[in-house]
Amino acid sequence: MKPIISSLGIDRRALLSALAVLPTMSGSFLTTSARAQTAGSGDALASWNDGPAKQAIVDFVKATTVQGSPNFVPAEERIATFDQDGTLWVEHPMYSQVMYCLDRVPAVVAKKPELKNVEPFKTVMSGNREAMAKFTMKDLEMILAATLTGMSVEEFNAEVKKWIESAKDPRWKRLYTDLVYQPMLEVMRYLRDNGYKTYIVTGGGQDFVRVYSERVYGIPPEQVVGSAAGTKLGYDKDGKAFLTKEPKLLLNDDHAGKPEGIHMMIGRRPYAAFGNSVGDQQMLEWTGAGAGARLKMLVLHDDAKREYAYGPAQGLPNSKVGTFTPALYETAKKNSWTVISMKNDWKRIFAFE
Amino acid sequence: MKPIISSLGIDRRALLSALAVLPTMSGSFLTTSARAQTAGSGDALASWNDGPAKQAIVDFVKATTVQGSPNFVPAEERIATFDQDGTLWVEHPMYSQVMYCLDRVPAVVAKKPELKNVEPFKTVMSGNREAMAKFTMKDLEMILAATLTGMSVEEFNAEVKKWIESAKDPRWKRLYTDLVYQPMLEVMRYLRDNGYKTYIVTGGGQDFVRVYSERVYGIPPEQVVGSAAGTKLGYDKDGKAFLTKEPKLLLNDDHAGKPEGIHMMIGRRPYAAFGNSVGDQQMLEWTGAGAGARLKMLVLHDDAKREYAYGPAQGLPNSKVGTFTPALYETAKKNSWTVISMKNDWKRIFAFE
Repeated sequence: MKPIISSLGIDRRALLSALAVLPTMSGSFLTTSARAQTAGSGDALASWNDGPAKQAIVDFVKATTVQGSPNFVPAEERIATFDQDGTLWVEHPMYSQVMYCLDRVPAVVAKKPELKNVEPFKTVMSGNREAMAKFTMKDLEMILAATLTGMSVEEFNAEVKKWIESAKDPRWKRLYTDLVYQPMLEVMRYLRDNGYKTYIVTGGGQDFVRVYSERVYGIPPEQVVGSAAGTKLGYDKDGKAFLTKEPKLLLNDDHAGKPEGIHMMIGRRPYAAFGNSVGDQQMLEWTGAGAGARLKMLVLHDDAKREYAYGPAQGLPNSKVGTFTPALYETAKKNSWTVISMKNDWKRIFAFE
Repeated sequence: MKPIISSLGIDRRALLSALAVLPTMSGSFLTTSARAQTAGSGDALASWNDGPAKQAIVDFVKATTVQGSPNFVPAEERIATFDQDGTLWVEHPMYSQVMYCLDRVPAVVAKKPELKNVEPFKTVMSGNREAMAKFTMKDLEMILAATLTGMSVEEFNAEVKKWIESAKDPRWKRLYTDLVYQPMLEVMRYLRDNGYKTYIVTGGGQDFVRVYSERVYGIPPEQVVGSAAGTKLGYDKDGKAFLTKEPKLLLNDDHAGKPEGIHMMIGRRPYAAFGNSVGDQQMLEWTGAGAGARLKMLVLHDDAKREYAYGPAQGLPNSKVGTFTPALYETAKKNSWTVISMKNDWKRIFAFE
C-alpha cells in the first residue's frame, strides 16, 4: 500500500502538522456546481498584469504558431502540460484529495460498521485533529486504501462528483473548484485557442481529477495524466464486465514520474509546461531539453493576502505541501525559466474576486 | 524480462513455428511511405458490401449521433477503440513488430561486436530459420530486450520510422503499412466524421505503433494505447534531460489488460470496439456492459485467397498469432456481437487492389 501514499505526493510529517491546524471537516451539502468564468474576448489574458510573465506567454505563442516563424510548431505537436495542486488551484494547507479521503471515512464506516472501533477510523470519526496528527504511516495507508480503492470505477466517480460539488475550503467557505486560478484558466484557454492541446499532469490521483477536469478546466478526462492505481476486470452475477480500483500503483506521477508519465500517456514532449514545486522540476527540464521555443513557468506563492505566501522568495517558509525550494529557485534562474509572482503578475487570482 | 515477451502477446511455440517457414528477412531500402487511400465522399463505407456488418455500423452511428435518438451520445463521450494486429492490418504469419526485432539484430550487433558470437544473436545473424525455431524463451527475451529497450525514446522512434518505411511483407512484397485493411480505414474515418475519437488499443508496443499511427491510420500518438515498457529519466553530459526505454512492463495491453489500459489511458468506456481475437474479448465485453447502443465487432479471417483464412468458421485452423477460437465465436453469438467476414463483407481488402 505504500505506493498509494507516494502516489498522492504526500509528505507524512507535512500532512500531520497540517491536519492539526485544519479547523473543520470540509464536507457540506451545497450541490451547486462551479464553472469558473473566463476572461472576455478583448484580452485573452485579462487577469494578468503586463510584465515578463505575461510577455513570455504571448511571445511563446507567437513564436510557435505564426506561420513562417523559425520556431513554428505544427498544430498536432502543440502540447502544453499543467501541474494541478498549487499551479491551477489552491494546495495550501492541504491537498483537496486528502480532504476527500478524510471526508469519505464516515461513509466507509457506515458500510463496514466493524471499522467504527478500529483505528485509524475511530480517530477520524472522533474528529480529533490532534489525535490524527499522531497517525502512523500505516494509519494513513489504511485511510487512503479504504477510500480510494476497492470500489468500481463508476462508484468512485460518483462519490468524487458528489463531494467536489459540495465540499468547501475552510478559509474561503467556497467549493474547492471555486479556488482555481483565473489567470491559469485564461492561459489554458489562450493556448487552446492557438491550437494547443492542454493536459493536466498531476501528482494527485488521475481518476480523482478526471471527474471534474472538463467542467472546471475545459480539459477532458483523457487529457488528465496523474498518479494512477491499477484496476482489475471482474464480472457481476449477470456476467457483466466491470473494473475495480486496486491498491496497486501503476504510475507515480511526480518528479521523474512526470516526464515518464507524459511519455507513457501522451507520447510527445510538451512545448509548454507549468508547475510550482520540486515535483514539477523534471517535467520542466524535459520540456526545456526539446528543440525550438519551449515555455517553462513556475507559479510562486508570494501573496499572503490574496492567497498564501510560501517558498523561497524573500525568505518565505516552504509550503506544508508543494515545495518551491531555494534550490528550485536557483534552477529556474539558471535555466531562464519564468517565475510567475502571484502578487505581481496576477491582477486577479479567483473568478469570484 | 519475461513481461516484455508477454507484452507483445507472443506465444513462443507459434512464434518459432512461424519463424521456420518465413522465407526471408523483410528489410529493404525502399523509403516511399504508404498513405492508404480512403473512399470517396459518395459512400463513406465504399469498400463494404451491403450486409449485416455494414448495416450494424451505420445503425450504430445513427443511433448515437442523431439528436433526439434515445441512445444519443454527447460528442465528448464518443470513443471507439480498435485492436491493430489482425483488425487493422495483416498479422499473419507473424506480427510486424517481431519482424522489426529480428531485423534490428544486425544493427545491435554492429554496435556491440562482442554479441556477434553470442547466442541467440549469432543464430539470427546466420539467417538460419530452422535454428531460430529452436530458440528458448530466454533467447527471445534477449532479442526483444536488445532491440526494444536500452535506447532513448528518440533513437527508438527514428529506427522504427526507418524500418516501417522500408521493410516489406514477404508475400505481397509491399510495405507493412500497405497491408492495412481499406474497409477499416473507412470505418475509422466514418466514425471520426461523426464525432468519434478513434483509438488504437493494441497488445503490441505502444511506442512502436505511435511512430506511424498518424500517417497510416489518422490516429495521433496520444490516441494509441498499447503494451508499454517504462522509461527512465536521465541527464546527458550537458545536463539535458532525456528518457531511456527500460525493460520493465508498465501495461500489458491484452485480454483483461485492454479494458484496464483503456481506463488508465482514456478514462472513458468506449461506445464501439473492434477486435479479432481472444485478446480482444474483454475489451468487447467491457464495451458491451455499458448502457445504450454499443458496437462490438470481430474481424473473421476467412479469405484465404485475398488475405488468410484462420479461425473457427468452417473448421478453419487458428492463426499462429491472433486467435479467433471456437469459444470466442460462441461468445460472439451469445452476446450478439457482429462478426465481420472478410470474404463476404469486404468488397476490397487493401487500397492497392
